[in-house]
Parts: sequence; C-alpha cells; structure tokens
Amino acid sequence: MAGLHPIGDRIIVKALQSEERTKGGIVLPDTAKEKPQEGKVIAVGKGRLLDSGELKALEVKVGDKILFGRYAGTEIKVEDEEVLILREEDVLAIIKG
Amino acid sequence: MAGLHPIGDRIIVKALQSEERTKGGIVLPDTAKEKPQEGKVIAVGKGRLLDSGELKALEVKVGDKILFGRYAGTEIKVEDEEVLILREEDVLAIIKG
Amino acid sequence: MAGLHPIGDRIIVKALQSEERTKGGIVLPDTAKEKPQEGKVIAVGKGRLLDSGELKALEVKVGDKILFGRYAGTEIKVEDEEVLILREEDVLAIIKG
Amino acid sequence: MAGLHPIGDRIIVKALQSEERTKGGIVLPDTAKEKPQEGKVIAVGKGRLLDSGELKALEVKVGDKILFGRYAGTEIKVEDEEVLILREEDVLAIIKG
Amino acid sequence: MAGLHPIGDRIIVKALQSEERTKGGIVLPDTAKEKPQEGKVIAVGKGRLLDSGELKALEVKVGDKILFGRYAGTEIKVEDEEVLILREEDVLAIIKG
Amino acid sequence: MAGLHPIGDRIIVKALQSEERTKGGIVLPDTAKEKPQEGKVIAVGKGRLLDSGELKALEVKVGDKILFGRYAGTEIKVEDEEVLILREEDVLAIIKG
Amino acid sequence: MAGLHPIGDRIIVKALQSEERTKGGIVLPDTAKEKPQEGKVIAVGKGRLLDSGELKALEVKVGDKILFGRYAGTEIKVEDEEVLILREEDVLAIIKG
Repeated sequence: MAGLHPIGDRIIVKALQSEERTKGGIVLPDTAKEKPQEGKVIAVGKGRLLDSGELKALEVKVGDKILFGRYAGTEIKVEDEEVLILREEDVLAIIKG
Repeated sequence: MAGLHPIGDRIIVKALQSEERTKGGIVLPDTAKEKPQEGKVIAVGKGRLLDSGELKALEVKVGDKILFGRYAGTEIKVEDEEVLILREEDVLAIIKG
Repeated sequence: MAGLHPIGDRIIVKALQSEERTKGGIVLPDTAKEKPQEGKVIAVGKGRLLDSGELKALEVKVGDKILFGRYAGTEIKVEDEEVLILREEDVLAIIKG
Repeated sequence: MAGLHPIGDRIIVKALQSEERTKGGIVLPDTAKEKPQEGKVIAVGKGRLLDSGELKALEVKVGDKILFGRYAGTEIKVEDEEVLILREEDVLAIIKG
Repeated sequence: MAGLHPIGDRIIVKALQSEERTKGGIVLPDTAKEKPQEGKVIAVGKGRLLDSGELKALEVKVGDKILFGRYAGTEIKVEDEEVLILREEDVLAIIKG
Repeated sequence: MAGLHPIGDRIIVKALQSEERTKGGIVLPDTAKEKPQEGKVIAVGKGRLLDSGELKALEVKVGDKILFGRYAGTEIKVEDEEVLILREEDVLAIIKG
Repeated sequence: MAGLHPIGDRIIVKALQSEERTKGGIVLPDTAKEKPQEGKVIAVGKGRLLDSGELKALEVKVGDKILFGRYAGTEIKVEDEEVLILREEDVLAIIKG
C-alpha cells in the first residue's frame, strides 16, 4: 500500500479472513457482545497530535497483526483489495508470536 | 496470553467463575444496581497517554485479581479460553491477599 | 476491607443505617430532591490522575464519615457485608466530630 | 455546621426565607425564567482542583450571603435545620452591605 | 448595584428598553433568527478562572453598553429594578460612542 | 460600525448580496448540502482566549471578504443596515484579490 | 484557487471524478459502510491552533491527492468549478505516487 498515507493517528488495515488466522489462535465467539476482527497493519499515520504540540508516534507499526472493533473505520478498495482506514483508538490489541 | 498485547490503557482479563472466587470473599448480590464481575489480569497495555505527552503506566498489573463492570469491554476467545479486553477505566478495584 | 484496593479516584464505603447515625445529627428529609446517604470510608484509591501527570491524593481518608449521592456507585458484598465502590466525585461532604 | 466539611468546590448553604431578606433588597419575580434563591454560606470546601494540579480557593467565603439557582444542589437536614450542598458553580452572586 | 457581586465570569446587566436606545442606533429586527437585547453592565465578576490557574479579567467593564442573547441569564429584582445575571460568554458585543 | 465592538473571538459581518459578488467569482449552488454566504468583515474581537491565558489575535481582519455558514450567528440592524455577529469558528475562508 | 484562503485547519478540495482516478488505483465499493471520495487539495489554512497557543501547520499540502469522507464539508462553486471546504480532520489519507 505504498501509495496511501493515513493522516495523523489513522492506520490502514487489511482484514484477515478466518482461514488466515493464527494457529491455535484467537476465535471470536458468535455470541460476543461486540465482535472484534483480526487484521494486518499496512500503513500508519505520523502520530497523534497532542495539545502540547507534540506529535506522538503510534504504538501500532506496519506489519503488526491487530484486533479491532468490527464496526470501526472506513472501507476502501485499492488494486482490487479491500482495506480499512481506522484510528489507532479503534485497535484493541496487537497479536504477537 | 503471551501473544496478545493490549493497546494503550487497555488490559486483558479472564473472568473468574464463582467456584474460583476468593474464600470468605466477595459476593455480588443479585439485586445490585450494577453487577461487577471478578477477573484475573493476564495482560496490560503500555499505559495511558496524557495530554502532556507522558505515557503513564497503569495501576493494574499482570496477575492482579480485579473487580470490573459486567457490561464493560469486548469478549474474545483465545486458545479456547474466553477473555475480555477492557480499559483500565472499567476496573473498580484490585483484590489482594 | 484489607483485601480490596479501589482504583484511582475510587473509594469503598459502608453505608450507615439510620440507627448508626451521628447523634443530634443529620437527617435526610423524605422530600429531598436528591437523597444523599451517610457512610464510612473503608478504603481509598491512590488518587486522581491529572492531565499534568500528577497523581493527586484524595481529600477523603479511610475512617471518614461521609455523605454521598444515594444513586452513586456500585454495590458489592464482601464477607457478608454490603459495601459500595464510589468515585470521590460522588462524595458531597465529610462529617466530623 | 461545624461537623460538615464539603468536598472540593462544594459549599453548604442555608436558604433564607423571604422575611429574612435584605432590606430594600432583592426580590425574585414570580415570572422569572429561572428563579434564584437567597442563602447564607455556612461551610466551604478546600477549593477547585485545576488540571495544573493547583487547588484554587473558592471565591465564596463562610458568612457570605449569596444568590443561587433554585434547582441546584442537594438538600439535607442537620440538627433539625434544612441546608443545601451546592457547587460554587451554582452560585450567581454574593450579596454585600 | 453596590451590594451585588457576580461570581467568576458572571456580570449583572440592566436591560435597556427601546426608548433608551442609542440614537440612529441598533434595531433588532422582528424576523431575526436569534434576537439579542441591549443592556448596561452594572457589575462584573473577578474574571474567568483558566485551567492554568490564572484568573483572567473580563473584557466587559461596569458602565459598558452591551448586546446579549435574549434568552441568556437569570432575572432578579433588586430595589424594584429588574436586572439579569449573565456569563460574559453570553455577551455578543460592546456598544461604544 | 465604529460603535460596535465584538467580544472575544466574535466578528461583525455585512452579508453581500449576489449583485455585489466578486467578478467571475464564487457562486453557491442551490443544491449545496450546506450553503455558505459571502460577507465583508466590519469589526473583529480582541481574539480567542486560550487555556494557557494567551489572547490569540483572530486570523480574520476588518475589510476581509469572507465565506461563512448561512445559519451561523445573530442578526442585528445598525443604522438601518443588517449585520451579523459570528464567531471566527463560523468563517470558512477569506476571499482575496 | 488563488483568491480563496481557508481559515485555520480548513482546506479546499476539488473532488475527482472516477475517470480522473489514479491508474490501477483506488475503487470505493458501493457496499462500503461510509464511502470516502478522492480529491485534490487546492488550498490549505494556516494550521490548527493548539491550546498551548502554537499554530501547527497542516499535514496535508497543496497539490496532494487525498481521500475524504463523502458527507464532509461545504460545497461552493468558484469560476464554474465546484469545490469543497473541509477540515483536515475529515481527510482520511494522502494518495502518493
């Protein structure tokens, strides 16, 4: 996603289908109150602008696998691939290892 | 939950069933106005980002037993275990001893 | 309540029944617009986290008798005793002497 | 009201009946959009806690006669006397002389 | 209005009737979306308390003729004269000359 | 409008009729979602008061032609001329040249 | 758009029609929850005014191709060309290369 630079505290995420999920991994129960979704971060903004004037780098990095709220963000299609633009605020956790 | 890193002021909690509760311990009355739930903290985020730019470590630590609001957070299933992702804001108290 | 540590600006309070009320003391009229309740503070959090990063100790201390809003907080039962978890914000006044 | 210490920016006020009103004084028209009430300040909190960490003393002092919004605050009865617990925010003006 | 001291960023204003209006002056059209009103400032508070702890003096001074929102503030009657207690926020402009 | 001094971050604007519009200029389509309006700034307030205590001068100056939201502000009539009192916040752009 | 200067954190954008879109590029699915739109930035404001008093330059520059929320902003017509006035906040991403 070389050509798409999210603004500020936004990130671009490719949602992962269930077959791509981590082994022995995370399953989102159908009965969950709010269903999160797995994704891979493909671009991150420059950071969050604080009231102090400081631009704070995001905690989420390109390449991270993340969990995010299913109804968050804006869908777009780039080169036939659907991606989402989220705010870091919508990310629940980074999945490692 | 080695592989799941909550973002910012979020934490991951395993809800405790009543049989796992502390001895002589805390009982949540059925008639309570808002029913809190017991849980064990299994992961914590890096902290709360303040307007001053400071990243303040959370008060809650991994291993803590906590009380939290029953309707707070997002449920996920990891390796057949249901856990919750909460904000520290949703934690009422730490249970010690 | 040695084992229960409220988070941040929260406190734990045992509501006082009318027979336990201070002599010549405070009576809450049935017709009051918002009925406050008397209680005894049995645990206090570490303080309120300010935007400046400072953790400000609470004004309310363990052992204080207080007045608080009747519909504030969360009820829990600890060792057969019902207590409430409030925010200091919900406390109206400290009763002394 | 020696025994009652309001928290933070709260104050305790005894509402004044019309016969106790200042001479040639303030009358609150029946048709007023929002009817304020006269009262005497009998206790004040330690002050308002600012984001900077500073505890700013209240402008209102014990003994001041004040005007406040009629629907503000919480009524309580102390030693057979009805008083109100308000925030300084609810005070409109101090009446002097 | 020697005896009435508004709190903080509040001011006391005497509404001016149309016959007292400035010559060749300001007329408020019946069809205006929000009808402002003319008045004379008879008392001002000590200022607005900023988050930094600074008490900023008001821009409006005693004696100023002002325009303010018609539905703003609280009416009271002092020595048979109806006045209004407003916040400086409700003042639109100062009328000079 | 020598006699009218807007407070703080407010400005006074004379709406421009279509015949007075800039040549080859800006046309507001009937189908626009929110229709802005052209106007000329005839007075500006002293500035916006920041939390830091700083009074920041407005970006808009007297004499500027501006675009502003059609439903913003308060209409008044001064010397038979209808003008509007807006906040700088309601100004979309300055029209130059 | 030499003559139009957006205020503060606002920008002026010319929406790009689908035939003008980047090759192999971004397609917005009809089924997207919130449909963003492509545009070209033709003017930017001086920056965002922070509480600290600092005027922070915008991240978006004149000439940038951007993605923005379809229902954001205000439409105007300048020299027979329809443009939009947005806040930088409404921009999702910059499209490069």
